[in-house]
Amino acid sequence: MTAGKLTRKVTLLAGGVGGAKMADGFQQVLPPGELTVIVNVADDFELFGLHISPDLDTVLYTLAGSADPATGWGIAGDTHAALEMLGRLGAPTWFSVGDRDLATHLRRTELLAGGRSLTDVTEALRTSLAVPSRILPASDQPMRTMLQTDAGELDFQTYFVARGQRDEVRGVRFAGLPEARPTEAALRAVREADLVVIAPSNPIVSIGPMLELPEMREAVAGARTVAISPIIAGRALKGPADRMLVSLGHDASALGVARLYTGLVDAFVLDEVDAELGPEVERLGMRALPLPTVMRSPVARASLARAILDA
Amino acid sequence: MTAGKLTRKVTLLAGGVGGAKMADGFQQVLPPGELTVIVNVADDFELFGLHISPDLDTVLYTLAGSADPATGWGIAGDTHAALEMLGRLGAPTWFSVGDRDLATHLRRTELLAGGRSLTDVTEALRTSLAVPSRILPASDQPMRTMLQTDAGELDFQTYFVARGQRDEVRGVRFAGLPEARPTEAALRAVREADLVVIAPSNPIVSIGPMLELPEMREAVAGARTVAISPIIAGRALKGPADRMLVSLGHDASALGVARLYTGLVDAFVLDEVDAELGPEVERLGMRALPLPTVMRSPVARASLARAILDA
Repeated sequence: MTAGKLTRKVTLLAGGVGGAKMADGFQQVLPPGELTVIVNVADDFELFGLHISPDLDTVLYTLAGSADPATGWGIAGDTHAALEMLGRLGAPTWFSVGDRDLATHLRRTELLAGGRSLTDVTEALRTSLAVPSRILPASDQPMRTMLQTDAGELDFQTYFVARGQRDEVRGVRFAGLPEARPTEAALRAVREADLVVIAPSNPIVSIGPMLELPEMREAVAGARTVAISPIIAGRALKGPADRMLVSLGHDASALGVARLYTGLVDAFVLDEVDAELGPEVERLGMRALPLPTVMRSPVARASLARAILDA
Repeated sequence: MTAGKLTRKVTLLAGGVGGAKMADGFQQVLPPGELTVIVNVADDFELFGLHISPDLDTVLYTLAGSADPATGWGIAGDTHAALEMLGRLGAPTWFSVGDRDLATHLRRTELLAGGRSLTDVTEALRTSLAVPSRILPASDQPMRTMLQTDAGELDFQTYFVARGQRDEVRGVRFAGLPEARPTEAALRAVREADLVVIAPSNPIVSIGPMLELPEMREAVAGARTVAISPIIAGRALKGPADRMLVSLGHDASALGVARLYTGLVDAFVLDEVDAELGPEVERLGMRALPLPTVMRSPVARASLARAILDA
């Protein structure tokens, strides 16, 4: 109950759905404005001539209380009239865009075209939707996750949505690096946080690109940091993180994730069902914190956030 | 009944709603593919970073059988979820854009950005929507109707939609002229038509800009041409044509419109309620054809088209 009083300024590194749920948990338990979410932008892409930032949108909608509870992404109750018509007009329809969601892409694209940074645009959007937490893109410069597969190199959305994650990932690179810089705001949010939290997002394609940004890994390593495992009992709750870990030579386990964060975090939250991995995690030089990490409801999100702040 | 057999190739010059209804009438009575509609583009504008062509859209939707019957523009049954969300995100909402309609703007803008001409893009859109008639923008180059009012010079959509036509129009110019050229396809459609029809659209801001394009007035004058009055009993059925005629020094009457087309048309259709103006119209050197011109229903559109072809 009193957790938020000691640790006030929390900065969360987040990808899409899992990261957004964790963000919502912290937003619920912290005083308004004390949470900053740094969001992966390496999944961003262009569709219909629009700049789409899937992870920023998922965090934005979730923190605005308007995310679709069935999927975790998109806007609850959104319709798809424009997408259906776009299909009739010959446009690709493999990426689901709701009508309200489309408005976000349009507004973002228009403001970016007017010369504003993605950071500024995101701030305008979250203010419009009365989101109390700051949402910061990890970078204002383009960086794109590219995946090596037997079907060739695929950009993230082609791999993830268009091809339904069916390709085995044999390598990953982040196009745009090392030119892309973390934003000053993001670096400052990490450096000035009482606690940096790495969300239970895919460590390779959601958290990975943010940590690859120059100075970001060092900033996170220098902070008081806790990470949460996105792998529970060897499986990702959502998405291909488990298969990706294996195909890239890691363990599809909380321990495998913890290894990726060695030297970076002070503590590691693994699900209570994986508690027996705790001692091995601790041998990596981090505290192991077994907790119930499945965020099935808004209440569960807040409970996890509170437990992390208490620990 | 046999009209379409003698006069097969009809080219219609059209603005928005009235022009689109006339186009639908001819499309109903002519063999598929024999109608070409040349459409005003001087009302085009940018909104949400998208290229919007209101008159092309109205003609497109009407000929696809999907125009909103209540308004004559937009798509029947369209929803407005994106526009509502755009408003929440701080975008202007004075121009009504439905969700399906937005798809058209998106697709057009994307294809234009890819380097295709407005003519090519319009052809792709009408083909996607299975419209049997050709729809040709009058020009592939930007031209914009600018109106002089006591509130200063206003672009057309600001005057027409945002300010609700409340300003008295004291002057008109077409920005982009004389650089803008009519398309080769539009000029050819006029020159090769068995009959050129000037729709009952606003003669100043819908038909006017097309006739101002280099070579277009000469091409129309050289063809067998009939115009239809948009003014009935001194009033425009829709829009500000009547007030605009008066404030620019013309008569708000079928005769006033006929005078604007002197030397250009061989025949002039005026509504039967204005039949007494016939002799004065004929003194301008054109046949006067009193007909029922109010197109209250699809059947009425076809009847008017057939009567024109018969006359």
